[in-house]
Parts: sequence; C-alpha cells; structure tokens
Amino acid sequence: MTVTHADVKAAGERVADHVLRTPILEISPGVIFKLEQVQRSGSFKVRGAFNRILSAGTLPPTGVIAASGGNHGLAVAYAARALGVRAEIFVPTVTSPVKLAGLRALGAEITQTGAIYSAAAEAAAKRAAETGALPVHAYDQPEVIAGQGTLALELMEQAPGVDTVLVAVGGGGLASGVSLGLREGVKLVAVEPELIPGLHRALRAGHPVPVEVSGVGADALGATQVGGLAFGILSGAGVESVLVSDEAIIDARRRLWSEHRLVVEHAGAAAYAALLSGAYRPADGERVAVVLCGSNTDPATLTA
Amino acid sequence: MTVTHADVKAAGERVADHVLRTPILEISPGVIFKLEQVQRSGSFKVRGAFNRILSAGTLPPTGVIAASGGNHGLAVAYAARALGVRAEIFVPTVTSPVKLAGLRALGAEITQTGAIYSAAAEAAAKRAAETGALPVHAYDQPEVIAGQGTLALELMEQAPGVDTVLVAVGGGGLASGVSLGLREGVKLVAVEPELIPGLHRALRAGHPVPVEVSGVGADALGATQVGGLAFGILSGAGVESVLVSDEAIIDARRRLWSEHRLVVEHAGAAAYAALLSGAYRPADGERVAVVLCGSNTDPATLTA
Repeated sequence: MTVTHADVKAAGERVADHVLRTPILEISPGVIFKLEQVQRSGSFKVRGAFNRILSAGTLPPTGVIAASGGNHGLAVAYAARALGVRAEIFVPTVTSPVKLAGLRALGAEITQTGAIYSAAAEAAAKRAAETGALPVHAYDQPEVIAGQGTLALELMEQAPGVDTVLVAVGGGGLASGVSLGLREGVKLVAVEPELIPGLHRALRAGHPVPVEVSGVGADALGATQVGGLAFGILSGAGVESVLVSDEAIIDARRRLWSEHRLVVEHAGAAAYAALLSGAYRPADGERVAVVLCGSNTDPATLTA
Repeated sequence: MTVTHADVKAAGERVADHVLRTPILEISPGVIFKLEQVQRSGSFKVRGAFNRILSAGTLPPTGVIAASGGNHGLAVAYAARALGVRAEIFVPTVTSPVKLAGLRALGAEITQTGAIYSAAAEAAAKRAAETGALPVHAYDQPEVIAGQGTLALELMEQAPGVDTVLVAVGGGGLASGVSLGLREGVKLVAVEPELIPGLHRALRAGHPVPVEVSGVGADALGATQVGGLAFGILSGAGVESVLVSDEAIIDARRRLWSEHRLVVEHAGAAAYAALLSGAYRPADGERVAVVLCGSNTDPATLTA
C-alpha cells in the first residue's frame, strides 16, 4: 500500500468544496506563513478526514468512527456533520472538558474510555469491527495522508518560488502528505519537539520505534511512534529532521501573537520555533514556508 | 486640497516595502475577509503613517508627532522606529496601561496630557508648532488617506471579482482611502456603531457634525466627528452608510474567533457585524469583502 502525488491531486479535487483554501502571509522577504490554523475545525486534520470519508463511496448506516481527544476528533466530527454522516469518537478519559465540549457541539457521539490515546484507539477498533462503521485514522491511512497533502498543492500555487517547507510532525500524516504534494526539488524540514522525537529516532533506527511522549506539544503531536506509511514516505524522500525545545515552542507561539497577531496552539508553533531558535538555519536567499497547522487552544493562555 | 486614485497608487509604491500585503480568506462562496488585522503594528493605520512620513522628504531633527492613545499612535511609533525617526506621541490621560506599554516598547516619547483625545490633539498641535516636528494626523490628511487606500489596491488584485466592500468608519480615513482605491463600480458600505454615528449623521446633515462617543468601539472608532477631507470624498462617492449595535459587534468578534480563529478588536469586527446582523444584506450572488482592520486587543477577553 502506498500513496502517490496523483493520490494527493485526486484528494485536492475531492475536498476542494469542503475545506478552506487557507492564505499565505509573507512576514519578511522570503519567510512565508501558511495560515492553516484558520482551517475549518481549527486544524489541517479536516483535509484528511474529508478525503477519507469522501473516498469511501457509500457509507454504512453506522457512519464513521475515530479515536482522538484532539484535533483529529474535531476534524472527523466536523466533516461528518458537514456530510450528514453519523460520527462516533472515542476519547481517552484525560481529554480536556474544552475539547469534549467542542466535540459535543459538533454533534458527535462520544465514548470516553481508556486512560491514554492508545487504549481509546483499541476500543474504537473493536467497536468498528462490531458496527461496520468506517474507521478514520489520525494519520496512518492512505486517504488521510493524501488529504493532508492537499495543503502542499495550495502552497505550491500560492508561493511557487519557495525552496523549503517547515512542518510539525506527530504521527507523520501531515508531513508525509506534504512531502508527496510538493513540487520536485522543494526541501521538507520535519520539526518535532525534543520531548517527542518519534520521526527523528525512527530515521536513525531505520524503522518506527516507540518514544516517550511529554511536553507542551503532547496533546497534538503525541503519537507514541510515527506511522508506518508516513515513515516509508518520509524516509524515502530525504526529509531533514530537526528537534526544538519546549521553551522554543512556547516562545514562538507567544511571538506569533505579539508580533503577527496569529493564534496557534503549541504544536502549531513548532515549525516556526525551528526557524526562530536556529534549529533550522536557511541559507542566504533561501525562501522558506512555515506551516502553522492548528489553533485549538484557549487564547487567554497567550497573555496570562 | 483633494486626494485622487493616482495618489493612492503612488502611496502603494511608496509603502510597499514597509507594510505587509495582508492576505484574503474566502470563508464561504462570495464572502471574503481582508485580514488587515495582522498588519504591522496591529492595524491598517501603519499604511497612512508610512505614506505621510515617506512623502515628507527631509524630516526635521525633531522627527514626527501625533496624538493618539490607540492604533494610530502605535502605527506612527512603529513607522518612525522602522525609518529611524524620532516620534513624539501625545496621549490622553485615560489611555490604557497596555497601550502605553506598547508605545513605549516601540521607543516613542510619550506625553500624557488632557482627559480626552481632543485635548491631547490640541497639545500635540501646539508642540508641533514649537518644535517643527512633522504632524501625522489620525485621519484627516491627504497622505494618510492615500496610504490607507493602498489596502483597496491590494484587495482589487487579490479578489478582482468582488462587488462590495464593507469597512468600519471612525474618522473616515480608511473608508475614504478605500473608496479612492477601489475599481470603478465596486460598492463601498461604511459601517459605524450606532453609538458613534459620525458619518451617518454627516451624510444626513450634508456636512460633518459632532456626535457623542461611547460603546465598545470607542477606543478605535471614537472620532467626535468625521474628517472634512474624508467626508468630501465619501459623500461624493455615494457610499452606503449602515449602523450596527454594540451587541452585534461583540457577537461578530466572538464568532471571528470561535468559527474562524481570527482575533480582532471590537472596532475590527464592526464591518463583519453588519453582515452577520443583517444591517447590510447582500443580493443573491453578490460577492462581498469584509475588512478586518485591527487587533490591538487582549485575546484573553475572547474567552473570559
């Protein structure tokens, strides 16, 4: 099973009427933000969710099912509501009341089970086998990866001269999709928190390996290991992997507000943190695009 | 003294390297946001400030001077710092500590004087006459109006098919500049809070008249009467004037965050409030652009 540039192009046509074409903003010569944090449901995840559901043809009466206490759950619930489909979301018991309220507001049926994500995911898989509902994975499905890659198609049209794209990595769905969607010759820099180096370790080991998960990015980048499909795509594409500290992420998020009036969650600031902290240093004249990928956060925390 | 489309075009070339080309975002078919709230200094005011200062040729050693406890003061301080020019800003004693801190952070010399804006403005004018510093008016100067109009030049390039532009009005600098910058045939809708109907009353009276100033938009739209230059331009252009309640402004600002992840100050949400509340109702198929014009606000107030 693999995913290709053609799959991303097909996804682009499939989701075009359902997701926003998010704008770019050039903040200084050669430094471009892709403002994906204003995407519907508050993150890029809705691209993959729509593509997965729309690719399925006729859906079972039990609808779709997903496990996630965060952006993926919100995206699946959003897409299901938009398409008039039933959605069941399994969330770990630690899920924040704010995100639960968001899921409920979107009309999803919520099941709280398991202390951590992987337990909720197991319970969702068992339930899907019983009900026949369509599982929508948070990152490791071809349609999900192809859907996330549609962001790169837009970016290539909006900023054709870009040399390098910086993107945050959790399970690798966005990064692998973007890798497939970019024009040949554009460099991809995969940014992870030092405290969740799933792709970084996998690239060294030559295969996905489990990592500890902690820090400010954990609620959105907290996959315990990078997805197998994503790893295959990213390791074959010669992606550059860099790590950023939690302090750098926090600083980048605050500066995105104070200097640019953009609100993102911590995970959504990780790619910019790589640029600000020097974890990635562009060459002279290199034109860099930074993907701001999520905003499911309380803005009050920016000025507290 | 008048201002023309050619002045706006010349301003566009003058300020191009100093202000951001702010993006547009189509949130639904035919409804476009101009995201001017991410502009440098947090509002459109920096367009006029740069154009006024750059039009002056050699500046006096005493630099520039302005009266404002808000967006205009921040914009003049920002532009002066960027150009290496001294800036003196006169602010009323009621100015919030947050805005004072912002002005100080930009390196401006602050004089707090007078209980209200007009008293600070009088003191600034007296001081300018003594020192020879270049006065930068908040709205009623040709170079300021032409500078604000550069927003419309961008918008016409970004969204050539737009039929109507909605913009918030205080002293009228932005609205009159935009009026001059739009392509012929594009309709301009001027939106004011019901509690500060300066243009609305002026259009009825046939000349600028003083109005009471109150409500949530007062810190940014609180001109006690519309500027004479702006009135001349707007009354000649057949602008449509509509009013919105404070409740509608508050609701629009909250929905800009909860539904679109955009943070604006109350004044910056007024134009969208006209659309949401039905104060302006587009015809079927009418393509509307809404200018979100400022974000000098504490985002904590969005979720409090």
